[in-house]
Amino acid sequence: MELPDLRNRERLVIAGIDPGTRVMGYGVVGRVGARTMRVDSGCFRPPRDSDGGDRLFFLFSSLRALLEHHKPDLLSLEKTFFAKNAQSTLRIGEARAMVLLAAAEFRVPVLEYSPTVAKRAVTGTGSADKDLVARLVAVELGLAEIPEPHDATDALALALCAMRDPRLDPRFR
Amino acid sequence: MELPDLRNRERLVIAGIDPGTRVMGYGVVGRVGARTMRVDSGCFRPPRDSDGGDRLFFLFSSLRALLEHHKPDLLSLEKTFFAKNAQSTLRIGEARAMVLLAAAEFRVPVLEYSPTVAKRAVTGTGSADKDLVARLVAVELGLAEIPEPHDATDALALALCAMRDPRLDPRFR
Repeated sequence: MELPDLRNRERLVIAGIDPGTRVMGYGVVGRVGARTMRVDSGCFRPPRDSDGGDRLFFLFSSLRALLEHHKPDLLSLEKTFFAKNAQSTLRIGEARAMVLLAAAEFRVPVLEYSPTVAKRAVTGTGSADKDLVARLVAVELGLAEIPEPHDATDALALALCAMRDPRLDPRFR
Repeated sequence: MELPDLRNRERLVIAGIDPGTRVMGYGVVGRVGARTMRVDSGCFRPPRDSDGGDRLFFLFSSLRALLEHHKPDLLSLEKTFFAKNAQSTLRIGEARAMVLLAAAEFRVPVLEYSPTVAKRAVTGTGSADKDLVARLVAVELGLAEIPEPHDATDALALALCAMRDPRLDPRFR
């Protein structure tokens, strides 16, 4: 899907997604004028005893509900860095597929960022640990408490990273 | 999803799926009494210029239509043998996710077989080439012509493999 010109939107909503089949983090960030705020964040956890198909169905339904509710202009998805073994890579592929499918169904464009790029956007360094990412995400969004768990703050970092993408930022026209 | 007891069904319909994001083969086989026949076979090919999400959406919609139309009692899915590189493994994960998701949505149980097991079920050897699999699938189903392409005959072989699964075959009670 082609990226529409979103630079001049008065109101811009971006949902960041940290994909996983056990825990999938999400973080929705809105920009109204010059102000950026958290709209929603958390994670989807399929029931532990559910099998592969039911777990994917749970994630897909949750993602659809998220898109339906917040109607983001854009999804910011963690670009896969390949997992240690083929089995984990396969699982990441399955989780990513749920995000790409839901986005395609709702006609929401997807931008992807590696974990390094997302961390750097928030902390200034690509090697920051998850605690630092969480703390700086909270500072940046003016949150009194640090959101839990890390899957949610990682997703918020992805959304903030997209907010600053030159392709979206009016200052970079 | 738990496997229901299908051994005593007078009529049993199994859809085999050979998963891929560029070409996904399907083969629907029915057993009525002692007779096994081909119901449908072919492959889904997303438009070549479509991006990741649209390709997955195409495959998912095609799979839903297949399940809706043939209402199979069971899906027989090729168990992933891992691809040569992580990128291909990721793609297989995405394609498999479409099958598992559609099956979960329609509450159709899924059995998985490795390519070796599926080949052996049809040819007697796990190292048969795709031409031999195609010829013997045609013989077994009494087809005047060998179905095309190999993705379709591989999918029919998967369906036939499941038809003979001891968990489904009344002779093995």
